[in-house]
Amino acid sequence: MLVLFTDFGLNGPYTGQVTAVLHQGAPGVPIVSLFADAPSGRPQPAAYLLAAYGEWFPAGTVLLCVVDPGVGSHRRAVVAEADGRLYVGPDNGLFDIVLRRASQARLWEIIWHPGPLSPSFHGRDLFAPVAARLVRGEPLSALAQLAADHSTERGWPDDLAEIVYIDHYGNAMTGLRGALIAPEARLIAGGQILSRAATFSSVPVGQAFWYINSTGLAEIAVNGGCADMVLGLEIGNPVMIGP
Amino acid sequence: MLVLFTDFGLNGPYTGQVTAVLHQGAPGVPIVSLFADAPSGRPQPAAYLLAAYGEWFPAGTVLLCVVDPGVGSHRRAVVAEADGRLYVGPDNGLFDIVLRRASQARLWEIIWHPGPLSPSFHGRDLFAPVAARLVRGEPLSALAQLAADHSTERGWPDDLAEIVYIDHYGNAMTGLRGALIAPEARLIAGGQILSRAATFSSVPVGQAFWYINSTGLAEIAVNGGCADMVLGLEIGNPVMIGP
Amino acid sequence: MLVLFTDFGLNGPYTGQVTAVLHQGAPGVPIVSLFADAPSGRPQPAAYLLAAYGEWFPAGTVLLCVVDPGVGSHRRAVVAEADGRLYVGPDNGLFDIVLRRASQARLWEIIWHPGPLSPSFHGRDLFAPVAARLVRGEPLSALAQLAADHSTERGWPDDLAEIVYIDHYGNAMTGLRGALIAPEARLIAGGQILSRAATFSSVPVGQAFWYINSTGLAEIAVNGGCADMVLGLEIGNPVMIGP
Repeated sequence: MLVLFTDFGLNGPYTGQVTAVLHQGAPGVPIVSLFADAPSGRPQPAAYLLAAYGEWFPAGTVLLCVVDPGVGSHRRAVVAEADGRLYVGPDNGLFDIVLRRASQARLWEIIWHPGPLSPSFHGRDLFAPVAARLVRGEPLSALAQLAADHSTERGWPDDLAEIVYIDHYGNAMTGLRGALIAPEARLIAGGQILSRAATFSSVPVGQAFWYINSTGLAEIAVNGGCADMVLGLEIGNPVMIGP
Repeated sequence: MLVLFTDFGLNGPYTGQVTAVLHQGAPGVPIVSLFADAPSGRPQPAAYLLAAYGEWFPAGTVLLCVVDPGVGSHRRAVVAEADGRLYVGPDNGLFDIVLRRASQARLWEIIWHPGPLSPSFHGRDLFAPVAARLVRGEPLSALAQLAADHSTERGWPDDLAEIVYIDHYGNAMTGLRGALIAPEARLIAGGQILSRAATFSSVPVGQAFWYINSTGLAEIAVNGGCADMVLGLEIGNPVMIGP
Repeated sequence: MLVLFTDFGLNGPYTGQVTAVLHQGAPGVPIVSLFADAPSGRPQPAAYLLAAYGEWFPAGTVLLCVVDPGVGSHRRAVVAEADGRLYVGPDNGLFDIVLRRASQARLWEIIWHPGPLSPSFHGRDLFAPVAARLVRGEPLSALAQLAADHSTERGWPDDLAEIVYIDHYGNAMTGLRGALIAPEARLIAGGQILSRAATFSSVPVGQAFWYINSTGLAEIAVNGGCADMVLGLEIGNPVMIGP
């Protein structure tokens, strides 16, 4: 399976062109858009979102990951190999948390080039052709060489106490793994102190709470409401863990 | 064919995860997203939208339908079997109108469980695995048991005189089947009295009108404009049928 | 490959119904949504966008193109055959620029009809069935007859000095082919004079510039910002080429 994790949007031409390259390079392989609205141009919150959601896919999945504000500059193009999954994309921190959390992880620098690259769309011109070859079974060593894993050098924390994503319902995902937070702990965000609940229907309509979402992240929500509007939350806002 | 009718949005992770489950469970079966913006958390208007659009698909189609504000509470998980189509989703009224309008209809309660369910995402953890098994030909009786059909107990009308959906152009669909309204009747919505036209190009640019849309619902539109903005319409607003 | 170029949006029912028709009519053929947010109801800017992005696809591609404010009126339904690609849609100017730029081009009027047409959704009822038959290899002559190419009669220019699309990041594409503009030329838009840069990372954060985008159009952007908001741009705004 090929999985897209990008900030391209779905309507415009970018997801479509990437999808066309993947269909041509790996005919018959299902393509799933996981996020087309990953934090735009912000590799740090995107890294925590990707680490949580990438793990959900089975080994053998190839994830094409593009949150790439530095496209056209000299950042490396890499493949992170982590617990049997392959993450293809820019070397800007996006894979730091994936690499750090994996039991088995290696970083590869892409050295194969498919031809001329546009300076602004490596997702289409480089990462998609590489992802298609990998999902078809071409060995990593034919496209890339082992590289030093710098995933701790940026000094990013193991969990990020910030909002990393606002979903379609207005729920605010944090970069905190829910299982690492004490069940009785409260989260403080948008000036409110929030208790944990099992799920939406556990609290009265209109009440804000936090819970462990279906993929393991601590998430702030309002039963029957939009947490982002009620609490004034957006990506990058701090979250505190209180007693 | 597998058809998605949800309020998940397309960009975020929900449609992607459900799609991944379906691809794995029913390889090679086409997956079509019909609505990803069904009335959010509102089973009643969604039920009339689903009844109109579900019928358009051929017999044998499996529709995965999730507008599920009560996820995690004790509502049943069901399959509505209606004129050869199977609708998989929550028992919260979403299938009431489908069941009522079908010539042949039965309601089944899902008793098979694929393993642990997250409390907040039965679409991914229960309904998608069930839909994949059904579209692959597994018999309903292996996954579900016949249940009492309560589709009239909520007292919902046969047609809903409300706006049930605003489309991408700003056209406002009602929950009224167009063929049941006298052609000379007027609809009253947003404080305006609207006559029927055959289609957009039948009226002057800027004029509001109602017409029978391409799937049979009475719909309010403005030629060359956005009816929702011109008339101040949103989901749930009343519509009256005038002389 | 089947490619969708429409103003239907992705969430609503239109792309889904068209996709269902295509899957049924051409099983196993990949379907790519290139644009679902082409300029709504505006064939002229859409024509320049389509000419740039259609060319990117390989010969043999069938493009289903619907920006069709005159649906239900008497405009013709056509297929533009251009350099081995087939463009199916309304005869309202949408294919004028494609036809004009192709080395080999012919226009066909669709004469085959699949049955009753809804007055408001020829994309689903006529263009999709035609596109499915064509991609399966049915000859054009079985569905259409050669027609006069009126692509110069509307008097549209070879390049359009206007904004034709705002992308997901707020970048503003023009209807100008970048390769035809002198590299040292400036573009004037939203009251600002913009120099050319190779790509985003070539200019300081916050600076507006123009560049040749990854598909060949001159595009106005702001490094790390949204050009549409910074410069107040929208589709249809004029762009001037200055010295």
